[in-house]
Amino acid sequence: MEGVPGHAPSRTEPGARVSFDALCQRAWWANQELLRAGLVSLTFGNASAIDRAAGVLAIKPSGVPAAELRVEDIVVVSIASGEVVAGRARPSSDTPSHLVLARAFPAIGGIVHTHSRAATAWAQAHRPIPCLGTSHADHFRGAVPVTRPLTAAEIGADYEAATGRVIVETFEDLDPGDVPAVLVRDHGAFTWGPDPESAVANAVALELVAGIAIDTLALGGPGGPIADELLARHHGRKHGPRATYGQGPTA
Amino acid sequence: MEGVPGHAPSRTEPGARVSFDALCQRAWWANQELLRAGLVSLTFGNASAIDRAAGVLAIKPSGVPAAELRVEDIVVVSIASGEVVAGRARPSSDTPSHLVLARAFPAIGGIVHTHSRAATAWAQAHRPIPCLGTSHADHFRGAVPVTRPLTAAEIGADYEAATGRVIVETFEDLDPGDVPAVLVRDHGAFTWGPDPESAVANAVALELVAGIAIDTLALGGPGGPIADELLARHHGRKHGPRATYGQGPTA
Amino acid sequence: MEGVPGHAPSRTEPGARVSFDALCQRAWWANQELLRAGLVSLTFGNASAIDRAAGVLAIKPSGVPAAELRVEDIVVVSIASGEVVAGRARPSSDTPSHLVLARAFPAIGGIVHTHSRAATAWAQAHRPIPCLGTSHADHFRGAVPVTRPLTAAEIGADYEAATGRVIVETFEDLDPGDVPAVLVRDHGAFTWGPDPESAVANAVALELVAGIAIDTLALGGPGGPIADELLARHHGRKHGPRATYGQGPTA
Amino acid sequence: MEGVPGHAPSRTEPGARVSFDALCQRAWWANQELLRAGLVSLTFGNASAIDRAAGVLAIKPSGVPAAELRVEDIVVVSIASGEVVAGRARPSSDTPSHLVLARAFPAIGGIVHTHSRAATAWAQAHRPIPCLGTSHADHFRGAVPVTRPLTAAEIGADYEAATGRVIVETFEDLDPGDVPAVLVRDHGAFTWGPDPESAVANAVALELVAGIAIDTLALGGPGGPIADELLARHHGRKHGPRATYGQGPTA
Repeated sequence: MEGVPGHAPSRTEPGARVSFDALCQRAWWANQELLRAGLVSLTFGNASAIDRAAGVLAIKPSGVPAAELRVEDIVVVSIASGEVVAGRARPSSDTPSHLVLARAFPAIGGIVHTHSRAATAWAQAHRPIPCLGTSHADHFRGAVPVTRPLTAAEIGADYEAATGRVIVETFEDLDPGDVPAVLVRDHGAFTWGPDPESAVANAVALELVAGIAIDTLALGGPGGPIADELLARHHGRKHGPRATYGQGPTA
Repeated sequence: MEGVPGHAPSRTEPGARVSFDALCQRAWWANQELLRAGLVSLTFGNASAIDRAAGVLAIKPSGVPAAELRVEDIVVVSIASGEVVAGRARPSSDTPSHLVLARAFPAIGGIVHTHSRAATAWAQAHRPIPCLGTSHADHFRGAVPVTRPLTAAEIGADYEAATGRVIVETFEDLDPGDVPAVLVRDHGAFTWGPDPESAVANAVALELVAGIAIDTLALGGPGGPIADELLARHHGRKHGPRATYGQGPTA
Repeated sequence: MEGVPGHAPSRTEPGARVSFDALCQRAWWANQELLRAGLVSLTFGNASAIDRAAGVLAIKPSGVPAAELRVEDIVVVSIASGEVVAGRARPSSDTPSHLVLARAFPAIGGIVHTHSRAATAWAQAHRPIPCLGTSHADHFRGAVPVTRPLTAAEIGADYEAATGRVIVETFEDLDPGDVPAVLVRDHGAFTWGPDPESAVANAVALELVAGIAIDTLALGGPGGPIADELLARHHGRKHGPRATYGQGPTA
Repeated sequence: MEGVPGHAPSRTEPGARVSFDALCQRAWWANQELLRAGLVSLTFGNASAIDRAAGVLAIKPSGVPAAELRVEDIVVVSIASGEVVAGRARPSSDTPSHLVLARAFPAIGGIVHTHSRAATAWAQAHRPIPCLGTSHADHFRGAVPVTRPLTAAEIGADYEAATGRVIVETFEDLDPGDVPAVLVRDHGAFTWGPDPESAVANAVALELVAGIAIDTLALGGPGGPIADELLARHHGRKHGPRATYGQGPTA
């Protein structure tokens, strides 16, 4: 794929560097979709797509508004070293957070970061989003947690990597496949999934349930989260070995 | 209509299976309209269209985002048996709820299910939406009720059919033609109407009045619902034998 | 203008009935603009355009969704008698309210009725919208009032005309040119202006300031309305003999 | 550029007046972008673009809805004298506020004024917007302040210039480069930046963080603003000599 600035030639050319065109396309689509879904504005927010076989992650460049983003602006970074392996732009300043998550959560294939309004309000209020309904249970098996405050030392040193580490710490006793979202205290939200498309869908779902939960509490709310049976039933319809939702492998 | 995948040939071919093209078109339109009206996102929500003469219901396939839905994806299901009679896809996982309603409410011709923000907040807060104004009275003759909690046994067995049954139970002393909407506790909303188009309109109206009611309570609200005379007057303008609204039979 | 269904021929044909094409165009535009501005959905809401010389008012037909409205659907009604003088459709069920306002407020040239979310919440909460800022003062010289409750007798008899009369009663000591808007208790909003375009602009402004006022109160609000000097200054910039706003008569 | 009404010929013509086409283009874009971003409706709001070398400011004409604005409607005004130097229209009634800011804050190249919903609610509630998260810190180094009330004398005399002066007074001990936004009590918001594009971006960011802050407080909010270290870190990523955000000078 010579001629596409910032991208290596395709795999079919022997001896050449690997092509990341398809991966960059998916990362570009995910960043655009966040914009269309109203989850990002200005330069807030970014999405990455992971290629486990190649050991890389394709991510939005720093400071480029999503509306102006081109596929060839996407940057490919080594998950192990954090070095840029393809692309001319400087990667998102949040790249170290993405890398920590990509290393710690081996089953995920895409990561999204937003400052979407309702989810960020919960993050700023230092409150986990309780599971108040089946819209929540369909995507997140229980409350979406909030990270602990970063220390001054963590902020002063490698802040973005520390943000990733504090997320991983929050999931010490929690399966990131069960709850593919977190609120970073005073900051915003991260979501993920087995691929970039599901990471985006989880970001959309998070904003929706965060907003419904704000209105639920304004109406006097329930005393606590929904019944365990209802949570398990809804989550189980869509996830895990007994999932019945969607068109299945043969559809 | 050979060539349209998943659909039987038209009635004009003797001996052939009945064609459900028109019914599928209406079900497809209703699902698309929910998306345009901002009532659904991702795979949340679905609409069905009922053909009483044929004893079938056309519904959205499971797990297909409304934005990607094609007419030929619509699935036709027997109301009596629940079996798929046309269409290649797996029907919505909420199909058993639709079937229970279609059997119990013989006058309805369309059903809509959404997780729209304001209506779902009321469902999660376990509060019926009181009739606080004429916008509400124009569509719903009194409060929109909330279902009782499902038992663990109901959730564990045929959950989606149980959801339909608990709605029917809620309307034991209530005419589903007078109040064509219900809040399913901890879940979302169902609306219906004499045809799919009015079921969609009732879903739009429900979200509108649910949102206005949230803001009304935030402003200190009134002490109770509007006067019976005003409710009856507004509902009667649009519904029943003395309706004066619209262009009438000769327009 | 033969060929345009429901409309009389143009003034240029001697002996023929007066043409209301231009008036219907403005009424049609106003109804469409309400839709574009997000102030109406379904069949909620309507706008009328007044021709004082002809003694008529052009208004939306009953029950036609704004999205499907054509210019030729607009109905022309005599302000004095309420009789349809042009157009084949049945006029809006709210026509008697428009007629009462058109008779009582001789300076107005357009009327709008909506159930827009924030304004309707104030109407349902039975609270006038206080003047909390210059956005409000630019359009409304003081609080936007709420009508008193209609009696059962008023509701039972000529309900829509009674709605108009209770608005006029509310303006007994208030200049409808100073405050071109009212909240009808438990119902919605009416706005007006010297022409249909300004009636629509006042409906847009009303919804905006109603929404800002809800958020202002949620933040603890101020103790009372803005200073009289600031109110007079802002209102006076746009209205009255000392107005300095806009491009003026020669621009 | 003869033929473009209201604009002087280009610099390339000797002896002719200076052309302000590029400046007017940027002012026009900024005003349009406010509309697209949902920050203005009707004739609320305006944006200006500053040319320091020419000593002028290009601004929206008075009373023209943003949706109908053409490039040739933009008016060019001398920053020193306030006189119109190019353009046929009457400049925005808020021009004196813009001029005071342009004179007092020599580093700014664009100014925006809006009545956007959430920011205006804070202005009407007389509360500075506290820095509750990194979305805020990315753009504003600390709370966005509210101006003191104008006196009756200030309102009665040169009201719009007084609005500018009270903003400047509010920044007596505050760097307008650190906090490029202010809430004008009972009125709305002003933002600015090194160029018109960043002034618009700051208006978008202000509305976003104002809205998130309202929801944060509704959720019980935090006790106070975010930690100084986090504020400094986020603001410093994007601003000042150690900024690491964006594509940098060589990208």
